[in-house]
Amino acid sequence: MAFYLLERDRDAGRHLASVMAASMDRIGRCESCRTLTEAPLCSICMNPKRDQGLVCVVEGPSDVAAIEQATEFSGGYFVLGGRLSPLDGIGPEELELGRLRQRLAGGGVRELILAISPTIEGSATSHYIAEMAALAQVPVTRIAHGVPLGGELEYVDGGTLAHAFSGRLPV
Amino acid sequence: MAFYLLERDRDAGRHLASVMAASMDRIGRCESCRTLTEAPLCSICMNPKRDQGLVCVVEGPSDVAAIEQATEFSGGYFVLGGRLSPLDGIGPEELELGRLRQRLAGGGVRELILAISPTIEGSATSHYIAEMAALAQVPVTRIAHGVPLGGELEYVDGGTLAHAFSGRLPV
Repeated sequence: MAFYLLERDRDAGRHLASVMAASMDRIGRCESCRTLTEAPLCSICMNPKRDQGLVCVVEGPSDVAAIEQATEFSGGYFVLGGRLSPLDGIGPEELELGRLRQRLAGGGVRELILAISPTIEGSATSHYIAEMAALAQVPVTRIAHGVPLGGELEYVDGGTLAHAFSGRLPV
Repeated sequence: MAFYLLERDRDAGRHLASVMAASMDRIGRCESCRTLTEAPLCSICMNPKRDQGLVCVVEGPSDVAAIEQATEFSGGYFVLGGRLSPLDGIGPEELELGRLRQRLAGGGVRELILAISPTIEGSATSHYIAEMAALAQVPVTRIAHGVPLGGELEYVDGGTLAHAFSGRLPV
């Protein structure tokens, strides 16, 4: 891309540079859900049609985009901006879990949905948040883990298969 | 492999050929579960410790191996040997679903577990078998579909994410 801009379109390169610089200054985090936004509150938190009684906890702003695109979810979000990882110095403070605790303690949250990747660090993060929600007596759910759609059983790893098996559902 | 055998080890090649020829003649299908076996009944169906009241329906013998390796499942199997695919001329008769119907009608099956790949043809097959089991009043479950373990939400396809979201479970 750099070669293309240098050889063919220097004006576009300058424009891209100025847009990037402006975004770096202008885009901040939503005061409520912590996703990336230009305004103090993001468009989802501002939308009165979204049901803020359902809160979906995700790792990053890209997960918000993925869920908005793939599902009919009409609740609110809480964006962690990472996963708990004590070895990298990322603890509950770095993920601003205090804000989530406040939101849970404030009442009005009927269901906390954990949409965190089922990796080792992600599972630890889910566990921590689930305990936090249990203290605030808010019901917690997590998105299903199992065989991906279109996936052949034969090529699925053993851990996923075991998980899918133990988590089988009535048809 | 062919070059290696021809250049380095022709005796091993001859041995492999004879073993392959023998397997082609000797290995047949289990009379009860239809998996590959040398005996009339496979080792799983012969094992009195396996609970034949739980029956797991899979597409092929390799799925039996995968489930045996990954899970603690101690029931029996029914191996379809494929998926329903009318365009390829594969109907209920080709998968010997009549045998499964008999087994369900015979009573004694407390749970039918569908461990069929969540592809289009696989889902159609699951649906067909679930209806068959419903007629025989046997409870049916299917293995969980969702985000694979260790998978990053960001890289999961939209269909899987939507499915995982709607199939969320209480923590």
